[in-house]
Parts: sequence; structure tokens; C-alpha cells
Amino acid sequence: MTRQQLFNQIQLKKSYLCIGLDTDINKIPKHLLGEEDPVFEFNKQIIDATKEYCVAYKPNIAFYESLGAVGWESLQKTIEYIPKDIFTIADAKRGDIGNTSKLYARAFFETMNFDSITVAPYMGEDSITPFLEFKNKWVILLAHTSNKGSKDFQLFHQNEKPLYQEVIEKSQQWASADELMFVVGATRADKIGEIRNLASDNFFLVPGVGAQGGDLREVSKLGMNNQCGLLVNSSRGVIYASDKENFAEKARNESQKLQQQMSEYLEMYL
Amino acid sequence: MTRQQLFNQIQLKKSYLCIGLDTDINKIPKHLLGEEDPVFEFNKQIIDATKEYCVAYKPNIAFYESLGAVGWESLQKTIEYIPKDIFTIADAKRGDIGNTSKLYARAFFETMNFDSITVAPYMGEDSITPFLEFKNKWVILLAHTSNKGSKDFQLFHQNEKPLYQEVIEKSQQWASADELMFVVGATRADKIGEIRNLASDNFFLVPGVGAQGGDLREVSKLGMNNQCGLLVNSSRGVIYASDKENFAEKARNESQKLQQQMSEYLEMYL
Repeated sequence: MTRQQLFNQIQLKKSYLCIGLDTDINKIPKHLLGEEDPVFEFNKQIIDATKEYCVAYKPNIAFYESLGAVGWESLQKTIEYIPKDIFTIADAKRGDIGNTSKLYARAFFETMNFDSITVAPYMGEDSITPFLEFKNKWVILLAHTSNKGSKDFQLFHQNEKPLYQEVIEKSQQWASADELMFVVGATRADKIGEIRNLASDNFFLVPGVGAQGGDLREVSKLGMNNQCGLLVNSSRGVIYASDKENFAEKARNESQKLQQQMSEYLEMYL
Repeated sequence: MTRQQLFNQIQLKKSYLCIGLDTDINKIPKHLLGEEDPVFEFNKQIIDATKEYCVAYKPNIAFYESLGAVGWESLQKTIEYIPKDIFTIADAKRGDIGNTSKLYARAFFETMNFDSITVAPYMGEDSITPFLEFKNKWVILLAHTSNKGSKDFQLFHQNEKPLYQEVIEKSQQWASADELMFVVGATRADKIGEIRNLASDNFFLVPGVGAQGGDLREVSKLGMNNQCGLLVNSSRGVIYASDKENFAEKARNESQKLQQQMSEYLEMYL
């Protein structure tokens, strides 16, 4: 998917919501456990219920991988089920030497047809560029994450400049805003404004609104650019809104609520 | 496996060789392609041929993941086939927020019974500690890698201290040398000596001898501690020593050659 196509979807749906498919076999409603593939059945119903309110889905690969080959099959079915006009993110945090990153790229862009993958920057340029060789596919590079440990190394600084800034600046020499997004945590909205100044055109994938406590309004106000430039993720708040038979309906309600707020912020800040 | 058990194996076999199972369906001998599971069949024959000369096997997870669910099954069979007295490394370069790292830990330590996993440090403490909750399982943290891009962020420095040093120092506050190893590239042997001073007791996983060009003697001289403290990896040089029917025999010869050198260096430097 191109940047323009993504922006078109955002305008059409008046939403920049990304729904995280952190599907945990231990958390899905009990009545699904009798299905042949409970994880896929859960995702299918969540997708059917929420697809008009979101512009992206982000399966967290760890949840599938923890189930071994079976989980991998559920993931494959899920990615095939997602409508083609919705952006897909493999939240995989991969990154290795060139010939290995190339294989990860093949796994997520060819074996499965994801639009994008999250990548960890520690190993540098040649761990990132193999993902860029695929047309209209995206690298979403970890910059400033939302977890407690983000301070441990991401704030390590050289002459006042923190590592995450170096990551943002250097990686923009390797890839354009048509193929590179950044993960920017929402736990401190002021950071988003600061990071917007470092990368005016790139989309940001923003986790941490909801369960991790970010403020959607502040994030939107400080982070938006003239193509929106934001994909704000909610996982648990949407997909686990209920653990009863009505889970999909409740997920629809939660995603609609977020979409309505986003519609308002697009009016205000775009 | 405990540190003492690993050292015992090193003494017993007079080897600190790790063999990287970077098994690429496009590179294995053609006569195996008729097998039901060619990747597993290749690994099985490599393991049978080399197990007396190495103390560790390191499947590179990308190679399996690129094949989807089928690859995952080959990996599962491979890890079950490796003799229990040989240390196993999931070369996965994972690392995510706490609840996600926990699931990766479950994938590699429970669903599959690996002894250790390589982890990328960018997300900090809570991305690493979930892996430490498993008894006698190991985190092998990326410190100074052997690829070209290692200079991009790993040498970013604060008051003369490079990031990789910060990673080594901080992570030792989170985990003891009984559960934490470091990835230290061998492309510059002098770095290994320097890093040994930062982490006297930890084992180092050293890629980059062979295809990536490190010098085994220098690495051994500068990197060894009183429990050897080194696992030196060779992947392509061993497993692709021949692409003919005699591939296993050739792999045996290559691994034996490395073991003989290591035996000598253990005599000299331990």
C-alpha cells in the first residue's frame, strides 16, 4: 500500500485507528475454544465487527509464535482474511544481518502478504535495508517506545542527542517517508511533538493509547501532519472489551468510539 | 543447561564450536528435495555428522520462518533431534514489551525446548527480563555485532562510552553470568579483548569466524576466560562445505578441523 492510498483510507473512514490483534488463546471467550481454529475464529469475528472503523490491523507475532506451527497457520489465515484496503502490520520487531533480514522480509512480505513490519534498529543499516527492497512495503522502525525500559538505551545520548533521535535521523538517509514509519510511544505526548519535528513526513505508529495510558487528543494534536501521519493502536481495549459471547459487538462499540474521537481530531488538527 | 554443564561439555569435547543451522531450502543438496521434510532431513544428517565436534547448535530462526508453518515444523523436529547434552540457541533476535517478550520466551523455551535465545536490547530491561524467569535458560544479548551496520548505532557514544558498552554494563545489573551471554562479533578481535574486560565471567557467542572473516586464534587468545567463555559459531563454512551427496561427510571434516584448532587453543589459553 502506498502512502497516498493509506491517507485516502484515513480520509474515507475518518479514522487512523490501528487494531492490535494480540490474540491470546487464554484470553479469548471460552465458547470459541471448541472451534477448529479458535484464534482465527476470534480474529475473524473481530475483523468483521471492526473493519469499518479502523485503517490498520497489527497482529503481534509473539502471540502466534508461542503456539508453534498451529499459531503460524492461524496468522496466515488472519492475514488473508483482512480486506485488502486495510493496512497490515506484522508487529515482529525483527532485525538481523543482511542475509537474515532478507529472509524475514520474505517471511512477512511474500509467504505472508503483510504491508509492513516493525524492525529493531540495533544492528544498523544492513539489518533494515533488505526490507526496503519490496515495492510498496514498509519498515516501521522502533524509535521511542512506550515501555518502561525505553529509557534504558533509547535515551543514551551523544552531545545532548538521544539515541532515538540518532535512529530517526540516520534511518531517513536510508529510506523515504514512502517506505519508512517510526514507532513512537504515546506515554508522553510531548515527545510526539518533538519527534514530529525530526520526521515531518513519516507516519508514526503509536502504541500506548489505552492499556498503556496515552492521551489520544494530545497525541493527535502534537503528532499529526498534513497527511495525518498517525496510526494509533489499541489492542486490549478493543479486542478484550468483553470475554463473553458478545465480544465482537463490544469490540465494535469500542472501535467506533475511538473512530468518532479520531474523526473529531481530524477535523481539528489535520 | 547450567554454565558448569556447558563448561564440562567444552572440556569433554575439547571444543567451543557452535554450528549455525542456517538451513536454506535453496542451498541444500538437490537429492534431499524429494524427502518429506528436506530441511529437517538436512539438519538431521548434519547433526549426526558433526555432534561429536561441537557443543552448541544455533538454528537461525529466519530461515525456518520464511517457510511459514512448514518451516516451523522443521524447526521443532530439529530441536527435538539435537542431543540433550548439546546447548541450543534460538538465533531469533527478539525483544518487545514485557507481556510480549514473555510470549516469545514461551515460544522458544516451552513450545520448543531451546536452552537460549538471542535478544536485541533496544527496548531495555523489561524486554529482557521475561526471558530470565525460566530456570537454566539463557538470554544472549546483542552487544557488538559483526555486520557492517554495527557501527551505525552500537558505536553511538556518551562521554566516550559506546552504546554496546552501556548495554553490557547495564544488563549485568539485571542478570548474572549464569543466565546472560553476549553476542560479540569477531570481525575485529581487539574488540573481544576489550569486551572481555567489561564482562569477565559471561560467555560470548561469537559469529563472524569463517564467512564473515574473523580470526579464530586471536579471538580465542583475547576472548577466553577461565571457563572458556566462548562459543564460536560457524554456519555456512560447515553446513555448506559441499552441495553434493557427500555434504554431511564434508561438514564433519570441517567441524573436526575447527575442533582440532579449538583443542589447541584451549591448551594454550584456558
